Amino acid sequence: MKFSNRVEGMASSPIRRLSGYAQTARDKGLKVIPLNIGQPDIETPQVFYDAISHFEVSVLEYTNSRGMKKTLETMQLYLRNYGLDFAIEELVITAGASEGLVFTMMTLLDEGDEVLTIEPFYPNYDTFAKMAGGRLVGVHSSIDNGFAMPSIADFEDKITDKTKAILLSSPGNPTGRVYTQAEIEQVIAIAIKHDLFIVADEVYREFNYTDRPFVSFGDYPEIAERVVLVDSISKKYSACGARIGSLASKNKEFMAHIMKLCQSRLSVSTLDQVGAGAMDLVDDQYVYDNRKIYKNRREVLNQALQKIKGVKVTEPEGAFYNIIQLPVDDAEKFIIWMLDQVEIDGYTVLATPAQAFYTDPRYGKNEIRLSYCVSEEMIERAMAILALALDRYPNRQEI
Amino acid sequence: MKFSNRVEGMASSPIRRLSGYAQTARDKGLKVIPLNIGQPDIETPQVFYDAISHFEVSVLEYTNSRGMKKTLETMQLYLRNYGLDFAIEELVITAGASEGLVFTMMTLLDEGDEVLTIEPFYPNYDTFAKMAGGRLVGVHSSIDNGFAMPSIADFEDKITDKTKAILLSSPGNPTGRVYTQAEIEQVIAIAIKHDLFIVADEVYREFNYTDRPFVSFGDYPEIAERVVLVDSISKKYSACGARIGSLASKNKEFMAHIMKLCQSRLSVSTLDQVGAGAMDLVDDQYVYDNRKIYKNRREVLNQALQKIKGVKVTEPEGAFYNIIQLPVDDAEKFIIWMLDQVEIDGYTVLATPAQAFYTDPRYGKNEIRLSYCVSEEMIERAMAILALALDRYPNRQEI
Repeated sequence: MKFSNRVEGMASSPIRRLSGYAQTARDKGLKVIPLNIGQPDIETPQVFYDAISHFEVSVLEYTNSRGMKKTLETMQLYLRNYGLDFAIEELVITAGASEGLVFTMMTLLDEGDEVLTIEPFYPNYDTFAKMAGGRLVGVHSSIDNGFAMPSIADFEDKITDKTKAILLSSPGNPTGRVYTQAEIEQVIAIAIKHDLFIVADEVYREFNYTDRPFVSFGDYPEIAERVVLVDSISKKYSACGARIGSLASKNKEFMAHIMKLCQSRLSVSTLDQVGAGAMDLVDDQYVYDNRKIYKNRREVLNQALQKIKGVKVTEPEGAFYNIIQLPVDDAEKFIIWMLDQVEIDGYTVLATPAQAFYTDPRYGKNEIRLSYCVSEEMIERAMAILALALDRYPNRQEI
Repeated sequence: MKFSNRVEGMASSPIRRLSGYAQTARDKGLKVIPLNIGQPDIETPQVFYDAISHFEVSVLEYTNSRGMKKTLETMQLYLRNYGLDFAIEELVITAGASEGLVFTMMTLLDEGDEVLTIEPFYPNYDTFAKMAGGRLVGVHSSIDNGFAMPSIADFEDKITDKTKAILLSSPGNPTGRVYTQAEIEQVIAIAIKHDLFIVADEVYREFNYTDRPFVSFGDYPEIAERVVLVDSISKKYSACGARIGSLASKNKEFMAHIMKLCQSRLSVSTLDQVGAGAMDLVDDQYVYDNRKIYKNRREVLNQALQKIKGVKVTEPEGAFYNIIQLPVDDAEKFIIWMLDQVEIDGYTVLATPAQAFYTDPRYGKNEIRLSYCVSEEMIERAMAILALALDRYPNRQEI
């Protein structure tokens, strides 16, 4: 029996596939500091749990396929607070940003179609494109210039008659880049010139540590018809387990197709929607405090990294990730070796190898992604372990 | 801007697209009896809510992509009670049966591949196949012989070198057929002969009103490698809003591909999994009582239908649906007309037009699907309204 070329061509998630090695370390009694995954450790707002415990129904029913009225209204209000004005018919609630991205790829791509992204990128983007029979094409950005946006020529080099959309995240996973107004407007110019959709993954909107205001692709009414905004409560409200996100678009035809896909899966979790619908009660202070916590962690991480000899780093501007280059032959091999061989005071570290964050196989082999969703103390411990591991690693290879 | 052929070729859900007409009726002050949707009205077990309210975490985290340990174990135990023995690695928790079916289509079908089903079928099967770039092909069964399983020749007529799988539900949505052992074994023989997967949607396993024991495709170890069992807590535990289902297969390669898709969406709702994980505490009496309630409703529905002149009916053997033929020109037009024109004591009725339950456009135009997830009193009211509507309908057309 043969399986589809689609799944044969998919890789396991680099973020999740090393979890077996981490488990082995745990089985030996070690504590594994999880720098591999963007799982916030901040408390989920109490209003989320309260709304669910006050939601008393005897039958737990399907909701509307678009989403519950209150959940949609809360998402609408959230976006309005950023100056992004969407009618309820221009919104759908999705099972996390993931479902929104899959549905968007399904709506935009036919077999063999291409979607551009800036590499390094979130590896599931590749899977989402493949699910729709399409192909993700990375436009290269480099640690050597701080993962700055590639030039117009770099984009145009990759555009073919199969290119349907540009998909990107800002603040960015995995680079932590927060694109400037000029960079955003460059993408817009390319999208207009080549008649492309822009799929803007803005789930880290709150995590901008620059002095510049965050610029959304939703800020430009002249391209509203070609923009899809992807959101999620996972990161901003520390509620990854709730699987609630949204899509927003002013393109009526796009949203009509999206609704057919929403109807096919009937509805999104009712209880999670009830919790998400109460997020309008979350105090601004919660978001402000969290931003400060992550910003401080970023400082701690960077200071520690700068002291490790032979490592190349840039300072992330947002989200809670950093891509760094290591003086090793193979980052995945190194991480597995570190989990097995290196510990300090009973701790070891799990990070994510970054090769799968690039479509171009020349890049990323000696890079890793670090997520800073742990305490400052744990970041310092983890960096001491990383420094020791790099010191001892038998296949060290200077950059 | 052009959208994918995939979504251009998808229809809106016939089950959900008439909801606007129902809303108009409600806005006029009418109560609409919902015979359109399989949304049980039975209480969700209290253990589901209790498990969630006792699940005290400060951070609502992602779970494992395969599912939470307890949820997987509860599903494993549930299947074992039916004599279906699966290891944890042979199971994944999915966002409802819907996600399981989409992932299965993605894993089995390449662009242009075909999946056979018996028509009339659950219309979302068609959408799921299209999402994977494939095509659902209906093998016809007819109300004239009680929707009996088509012959081997009927199946083989539709098998091409593109056919990858047979997808079917038993107890069946929308026909209510519970396939006999001989019928199940016929499908197995076809699958072996033509090297096809069998995707068995058994979400209505509990709702078997015959004296025959339910026969699962999981009962045949000799074809275990080509069988995928699809389950859900939605119907059996009256928990549609929880969006928890599962896939079970002994084909290791199939499950490895499925896991990649599971990883791409990170995880399924944590709270819903916690609730589903407690379903092992549900008393057998709950299932027994519910079966009795639905069985009685089936009697009431059938007795009422037999009194309506000109309607063709069969007696469903399981699930909670029935496909019936009406003496009308066009069932969808009739339903819309009935919502607008017919009421008794402030009630009107919503049913689902059945044409989209067939791939062959010659069938189903004068058929509707009735779901009996409402009280016996409501069924009787609804049938009185249907009888009156058929009597008054200006485009009556005898069968």
